[in-house]
Amino acid sequence: MGDLERLPVGILGASGYGGVQLVRLLMDHPGVEVVYLGGDSSAGKSFSELYPHLGHRVDLIVESIDVEEIAKRCKAVFLSLPTGLAYQMAPALVAKGCKVLDLSADYRFSNLETYKNWYGGDRQDQEIAATAVYGLPELYRDRIAEAQLVGCAGCYVTTSLLALAPLLKQGLIVPETAIIDAKSGTSGGGRVAKTNLLLAEADNSIAPYAVAHHRHIPEIEQICSDLAGHDVMVQFTPHLIPMVRGILATVYATLRDPGLVREDLVTIYSAFYRASPFIRVLPAGTYPQTKWACGTNVCYIGVEVDARTGRVIVMSATDNLIKGQSGQAIQCLNIMMGWEETLGLPQLGFYP
Amino acid sequence: MGDLERLPVGILGASGYGGVQLVRLLMDHPGVEVVYLGGDSSAGKSFSELYPHLGHRVDLIVESIDVEEIAKRCKAVFLSLPTGLAYQMAPALVAKGCKVLDLSADYRFSNLETYKNWYGGDRQDQEIAATAVYGLPELYRDRIAEAQLVGCAGCYVTTSLLALAPLLKQGLIVPETAIIDAKSGTSGGGRVAKTNLLLAEADNSIAPYAVAHHRHIPEIEQICSDLAGHDVMVQFTPHLIPMVRGILATVYATLRDPGLVREDLVTIYSAFYRASPFIRVLPAGTYPQTKWACGTNVCYIGVEVDARTGRVIVMSATDNLIKGQSGQAIQCLNIMMGWEETLGLPQLGFYP
Amino acid sequence: MGDLERLPVGILGASGYGGVQLVRLLMDHPGVEVVYLGGDSSAGKSFSELYPHLGHRVDLIVESIDVEEIAKRCKAVFLSLPTGLAYQMAPALVAKGCKVLDLSADYRFSNLETYKNWYGGDRQDQEIAATAVYGLPELYRDRIAEAQLVGCAGCYVTTSLLALAPLLKQGLIVPETAIIDAKSGTSGGGRVAKTNLLLAEADNSIAPYAVAHHRHIPEIEQICSDLAGHDVMVQFTPHLIPMVRGILATVYATLRDPGLVREDLVTIYSAFYRASPFIRVLPAGTYPQTKWACGTNVCYIGVEVDARTGRVIVMSATDNLIKGQSGQAIQCLNIMMGWEETLGLPQLGFYP
Amino acid sequence: MGDLERLPVGILGASGYGGVQLVRLLMDHPGVEVVYLGGDSSAGKSFSELYPHLGHRVDLIVESIDVEEIAKRCKAVFLSLPTGLAYQMAPALVAKGCKVLDLSADYRFSNLETYKNWYGGDRQDQEIAATAVYGLPELYRDRIAEAQLVGCAGCYVTTSLLALAPLLKQGLIVPETAIIDAKSGTSGGGRVAKTNLLLAEADNSIAPYAVAHHRHIPEIEQICSDLAGHDVMVQFTPHLIPMVRGILATVYATLRDPGLVREDLVTIYSAFYRASPFIRVLPAGTYPQTKWACGTNVCYIGVEVDARTGRVIVMSATDNLIKGQSGQAIQCLNIMMGWEETLGLPQLGFYP
Repeated sequence: MGDLERLPVGILGASGYGGVQLVRLLMDHPGVEVVYLGGDSSAGKSFSELYPHLGHRVDLIVESIDVEEIAKRCKAVFLSLPTGLAYQMAPALVAKGCKVLDLSADYRFSNLETYKNWYGGDRQDQEIAATAVYGLPELYRDRIAEAQLVGCAGCYVTTSLLALAPLLKQGLIVPETAIIDAKSGTSGGGRVAKTNLLLAEADNSIAPYAVAHHRHIPEIEQICSDLAGHDVMVQFTPHLIPMVRGILATVYATLRDPGLVREDLVTIYSAFYRASPFIRVLPAGTYPQTKWACGTNVCYIGVEVDARTGRVIVMSATDNLIKGQSGQAIQCLNIMMGWEETLGLPQLGFYP
Repeated sequence: MGDLERLPVGILGASGYGGVQLVRLLMDHPGVEVVYLGGDSSAGKSFSELYPHLGHRVDLIVESIDVEEIAKRCKAVFLSLPTGLAYQMAPALVAKGCKVLDLSADYRFSNLETYKNWYGGDRQDQEIAATAVYGLPELYRDRIAEAQLVGCAGCYVTTSLLALAPLLKQGLIVPETAIIDAKSGTSGGGRVAKTNLLLAEADNSIAPYAVAHHRHIPEIEQICSDLAGHDVMVQFTPHLIPMVRGILATVYATLRDPGLVREDLVTIYSAFYRASPFIRVLPAGTYPQTKWACGTNVCYIGVEVDARTGRVIVMSATDNLIKGQSGQAIQCLNIMMGWEETLGLPQLGFYP
Repeated sequence: MGDLERLPVGILGASGYGGVQLVRLLMDHPGVEVVYLGGDSSAGKSFSELYPHLGHRVDLIVESIDVEEIAKRCKAVFLSLPTGLAYQMAPALVAKGCKVLDLSADYRFSNLETYKNWYGGDRQDQEIAATAVYGLPELYRDRIAEAQLVGCAGCYVTTSLLALAPLLKQGLIVPETAIIDAKSGTSGGGRVAKTNLLLAEADNSIAPYAVAHHRHIPEIEQICSDLAGHDVMVQFTPHLIPMVRGILATVYATLRDPGLVREDLVTIYSAFYRASPFIRVLPAGTYPQTKWACGTNVCYIGVEVDARTGRVIVMSATDNLIKGQSGQAIQCLNIMMGWEETLGLPQLGFYP
Repeated sequence: MGDLERLPVGILGASGYGGVQLVRLLMDHPGVEVVYLGGDSSAGKSFSELYPHLGHRVDLIVESIDVEEIAKRCKAVFLSLPTGLAYQMAPALVAKGCKVLDLSADYRFSNLETYKNWYGGDRQDQEIAATAVYGLPELYRDRIAEAQLVGCAGCYVTTSLLALAPLLKQGLIVPETAIIDAKSGTSGGGRVAKTNLLLAEADNSIAPYAVAHHRHIPEIEQICSDLAGHDVMVQFTPHLIPMVRGILATVYATLRDPGLVREDLVTIYSAFYRASPFIRVLPAGTYPQTKWACGTNVCYIGVEVDARTGRVIVMSATDNLIKGQSGQAIQCLNIMMGWEETLGLPQLGFYP
């Protein structure tokens, strides 16, 4: 990117975990320059007061959110805000020519009624929303390349869909048998002080929650249905586990063809993700663990077949705050800009 | 127990995690006196050298294993040894009149062929093995009361079966749809130095293992088949999670009667476990977490129904080293002795 | 206690970590019956709603705080409230004849000016405060036995003082060289949602805080001065470490007599704590770890001498929520009632 | 580095934690190419079998160690072997013209007698050893630039010395009052299966070890003496804490000039480390935590003065496997090669 001018970008909601990942990643991204950090409760504070560990490299001040001003200074804007705020700003930013990458649920639904059923709110932005593209590059790369507004896929959904997509797209499973048992570190809850996310409460324990009623279910089903070509209903159970970062999805489904062995499926997955630099399909017999993905934008996928029960078990692991959030958004921006998809995104984790 | 003489008991394999739980629990048990600790590599060492935190209360020396001597001094013996050793000692101990509680897999199988397929070994103890009772009190209380030799159920199996039993026994589910997604703390691997169980490796990560091939599968299926009255095949996937103690089983199955709601199932479970003091069926809408069970012999069970998919989701949580191991064995002994089932067993955990 | 009537006790601040420890411990205490739980924000809720894991044994409702009513129903009252509230209730409770055990800082200072300098507030209870005894049984057992009002020593202070007391009392060290480097699990912060105590923030990190300015310093110095017989000033640095329960204090001081070896000091410590059932002085060469103390009222102490530097290093480990809080209060009550000091208090931890 | 040829480098001991950090970091280093991985027990295995998470980028095979062959293929060699092996290989590698960076203790001592007292062994390499430079760039940058053989400073020592150096160099403290209370994550123990480093043992606990006798003491004192210009003796106590990566050193010392305030010291530290890009001196009142340093080569330093006691308290935090090991070695190589000191080394950590 040596001679090119860097793209001026802004981050709204810079004080949260999504924000700090974006700042961290974009500081090392050769194509962009972070020129604006916006926040609400943290407006007026220096970013290094919020995150002292970045103080030697970041000297930006968090500013209050002013859409006019943002559009003047930024060519691309990341919205890392709680669900329900993005749709109040995105239309104006889009109208002024900004590329908008929303990390919340606001622009993930093709049907706004579904959104309203699960999240409420009074949506008056149908027209803009209709132009939004679902931000999961491995499945919608071409459409993202053309988009101005992207509703980036979230952590649980990304991890689940990357495991399921080849099976559904190629009709290998009985869709209604799909069960997703997902396990997440607690950073998914954000930098918000909640009692159940205290170390004292969450450490040395594992807890299921929102069983049968998690609001990521409609989002998963929307994309599964798109992949399968007909309505698909899945079972999804999230669990909180005692670690900071990482999601593992263990996915079960009944194979249509009981003669398939795991080596077949490794081949199928490898082919399906051939052009996807952030998907690492593991060799037969190797299963992923979340630590491998930690600090990277990579999704590790392992596949097993149980010949006794006729089921495939797919295991996928991501860093919920990178491939599941900020890294995904940057990957989308790279595609929107016509840049190398991997630009500025870590592919190698530290271990242990 | 005030006026009774205490029962002299021995523990073989005292240096492992099973052994130290037994020592810890039996020190506070009013009906027994620990008179013998046996070990192999630790023979000759004082127990407080192995576990200094118990030094103010335990002054026993670990002795080498001598069956004659053990039978002379003990009326009941806990075998907390690696699988494959108990069947070399139990016959002699039984012959000399000892009650024997084996914590390994050696006496869990009604069909020794199944044992040999999964664990190998040359079993010459068919006759004695045929008298062994499966040590899961909530399901086989009456038979345990009559037994001299008990093959105590292990941690994964106990947690899984307590979740599944009411469903299978009462024919509420389609058995072949049962999927058990289990998550365990790393103490289940024992006090054995293995690289993958190092804190540096296992912390901040979750990893599936032995997918579709774990050797607890035949044991789970044996009991499920017994409960259902016909052969049952289940899916079982264990995961290692970054905590010391605790197992959570998340069990999925398709209901035969789609009209059942979770309140019905809470009622059914409560009735099924009415006489079981260590089962705590949670109110509708409350799901268990492993920390609650930590340090107790209690199994917490939560039930949910997904009306959309027609599935029941049962979640059960135990302390893998107590209800899943040492506490279970003591519970069996209490029953064998005609004592109160809860004698000397903790029912209340510390929190957080 | 078989034939005696149980002492009716109340707990104010039942919803916090101190409260739930007290409930948990007192349920198994043969001398008392919990007849009253008081709280503010949680008034009206059933206790098992706050802590579902105790639901099978505890069916009390948290009531709003009414001193008249409490005094009518309870003979002893535990005040497990934030500092600054106890002194508004204790005088009335004492006047009505209740024994009062305060777990906050309100009654720990012999000089109320010191209290006001560090905690503020308008103290009008000088007369009652003057009757309060400092609740650290190993040092003030006799006075506690006579007291009606006890200001129980807190977690950092207890752990630090038990390490330092023999050295100061017997004039073995140069007092002004004493440095206490203390490390605590995060449960010390209470069941209050604070960002820095989130698992996502506090896990996999260690952080010093309140360096040179922690408000436990005056409390430590007050007792050190009492032990030494003259004013003593110490260095105290607390650290937050990524675990739930436990405090380790590593204490450094220069020996007056450079000829002392660690075996001498083990002898001196053992003698000093001869009558203290909850102090476990470790053999020479063995150092404590916090896990040993977890779930018990025991303080483990290890001693080392560095002949090169002329310093003694004393390491003490406790469970901050038991010996450092609730267990200590119960130990005080046992003494006040003339009961066995160990009654109802755990002496053996689970491991691992 | 675009047009330059990459420097061919080798790593001996590639299978350990030091090795995998080096591989990970050097894959992203623009100046080098990893052409050789050497190991003993892992010889013949593909590196991605040992560390599957790097399999999409690393396709090297671990080879058996053959010094001739290594010298032929590599211009620089990292020795990441257990102490006692490097001195058997380094002389030959140096003789053949390789630059050698040893991560063990073998080349850290200017006096080989000290080495032999603490580590044993039969050293015949006095001549070569005398040319070795101590690999702590912030203190010995100029000498490293001229060196062919560097004995890189280890994790505890680096973290301790970076905290102490400005005080000793400028004569601000009474040297014999220096006490270092150090806390390390368990990865410092290496990828070696030891019982006390199991998650089940080490999690939720903190334990001091090697009190007054740790073998890093002579190494710390050697450099402290060099800085002070006379023999210095320090107190050093290591602790194992329940986390994977990171070291915090809390350093206490009595100030010579009691009038100094913390702001003075922040100024002094900032000046001292002005040319050191990996030292981040924190603003007054901010203290470091290890998580900030995680995944970076940065050392964060916070300074506090206790006017009451006349002591300075310095807190320093590093990632033990990067600034304390592999990153330090790469930093040394950068200097030896005349490259930018920060080349290929991460300066920004992920948070949380």
